[in-house]
Amino acid sequence: MAKYAIGIDIGGTNTKFGVVDQHGKILQQDRLLTNEPDGVQDFINELHEKMLPMIEKNGGIKNFAGMGIGAPNGNYYTGNIEYAANLKWRGIIPFASMVSEKFGLPVRLTNDANAAAMGEMMYGCAKGMKHFITITLGTGVGSGIVIDGKIVLGHDGFAGELGHTIIRPGGRLHKGTGIRGTLESYASATGVRETALEMLTDNPNVESLLRDYTINDLITSQTVYECAMKGDKIANDIFEFTGQILGEALANFVMFSSPEAIVLFGGLTKAGDLILNPTKQAMEANLIQIFKNKVKILYSDLKEADAAILGASALVWEVSI
Amino acid sequence: MAKYAIGIDIGGTNTKFGVVDQHGKILQQDRLLTNEPDGVQDFINELHEKMLPMIEKNGGIKNFAGMGIGAPNGNYYTGNIEYAANLKWRGIIPFASMVSEKFGLPVRLTNDANAAAMGEMMYGCAKGMKHFITITLGTGVGSGIVIDGKIVLGHDGFAGELGHTIIRPGGRLHKGTGIRGTLESYASATGVRETALEMLTDNPNVESLLRDYTINDLITSQTVYECAMKGDKIANDIFEFTGQILGEALANFVMFSSPEAIVLFGGLTKAGDLILNPTKQAMEANLIQIFKNKVKILYSDLKEADAAILGASALVWEVSI
Repeated sequence: MAKYAIGIDIGGTNTKFGVVDQHGKILQQDRLLTNEPDGVQDFINELHEKMLPMIEKNGGIKNFAGMGIGAPNGNYYTGNIEYAANLKWRGIIPFASMVSEKFGLPVRLTNDANAAAMGEMMYGCAKGMKHFITITLGTGVGSGIVIDGKIVLGHDGFAGELGHTIIRPGGRLHKGTGIRGTLESYASATGVRETALEMLTDNPNVESLLRDYTINDLITSQTVYECAMKGDKIANDIFEFTGQILGEALANFVMFSSPEAIVLFGGLTKAGDLILNPTKQAMEANLIQIFKNKVKILYSDLKEADAAILGASALVWEVSI
Repeated sequence: MAKYAIGIDIGGTNTKFGVVDQHGKILQQDRLLTNEPDGVQDFINELHEKMLPMIEKNGGIKNFAGMGIGAPNGNYYTGNIEYAANLKWRGIIPFASMVSEKFGLPVRLTNDANAAAMGEMMYGCAKGMKHFITITLGTGVGSGIVIDGKIVLGHDGFAGELGHTIIRPGGRLHKGTGIRGTLESYASATGVRETALEMLTDNPNVESLLRDYTINDLITSQTVYECAMKGDKIANDIFEFTGQILGEALANFVMFSSPEAIVLFGGLTKAGDLILNPTKQAMEANLIQIFKNKVKILYSDLKEADAAILGASALVWEVSI
């Protein structure tokens, strides 16, 4: 019986891939720059070139059950990548079938956030849970929803776009979607940076270490975190503000699917309790009685690069997600 | 084989019940006042007294497969009614087992909004759909969510409380929950009445037919509808305002579970296009590209009293919801 799966995570910048066994051990991994090859077919050719030695080293193609791919706007039902804003490939790409043809292996594809949720369920802190939601707080805000042990795909395969739900109606404009006040405009790395710039402008007389970073445009969620740890008031206010909004959004998600836990991962979680405490507080304050003090907020304990590859590979072992 | 089911819908005012066949035909029905009997056991005794002749008339207990009950805060997993705000019965009531003991029939219980969703799926306008959401726009705002042909119950049986999701953070206070800006505070009969009173106060110089109704405190969603149909500006503004908020909330729900349709029912839907048009417009304006012009908003075509009984009875025929 085939012992291994290939897990591939396609991101806006990097594509990470690896050979994974059924216990979630990554035997080998590598990466390539997603947008460097000239088009989709070139990308797939380069991926194949880099993977072939890995496949050979692990006993050849007969030892592999299949490939799992997580990609932005990846659709599990169709195997297509459709209108992904962060990729150079435009329109609707029949990605799963193109990869399958090149490698001669069955391929399953889903969106990157769903793949991450699969990884958490099979190998991470949601192991054994049947109802949970994962939220990626990265450059954007992604989400994967699990109900009754299955990823929620919806009638067309596109369910779980919680980063685009409205939480501050009429609020900040999301340049990518044209919609105002969505979660992603606040609780992403980009959002935190924008909040920082706003707060510094709105409070010209408040001293802040962050002002030093504005000169060369170096404000990131990381610099905000470093300043907050040094006791900077505005930096701390930024996390309070972000946590309040994120917590309210999480309360909304809880009242939809009543999960056992919400698993957070991505760059913003590096801020630890600075963001977790106000998030928890705001979530609890906005839950109705039957949900209070029930829902765990967890930080993913998988290494970030690993989670993506593991999650994608997990698609291979599931009869269906 | 047993041919009939009993469907019971427990509301804050009325309890409706009937005998239903497998094709969704209601053979007989009646009602009683929910809070008139002295306590839960008295209520069950009275229900039994009223139902017994119906059961006898349809061939006796051997012809009945079971009973299905929809109740506020009814929990499918436990069979309990827990802390229902609109009922006199306090605390946690083991309702399903109490009814089962009295009648000698298997009993399934779920919350009233989930029962309504079951009714729509088996006999209403969601027949054949596997992914949809029902929203009751009544005294409050209830919801039932169907994913992959199953009601979403969540890890504890309490999922689907969409009326309590936040859509105007820091907005109107919900007296029952103490939470500000939730959908129920705006898109319910109570909410529409409050919007009317607010708009009349905020626009003292605008003439409105609604002012005549304020004298004896007769403003209801029905009177707002009647005035709007006569071309009253404030009355029309009220539906625009309510539809805008409802539409934004529906967009959020779509981005969670990507349903094929949203089925609306309850008193507010009597306002027809006055509420439907602004709702649709606001929903579409707040959906990201992949969801636009895909999701139907439907009005339930089941008679209101029937939907409740049918939905509850449908619980009996399902192996599991």
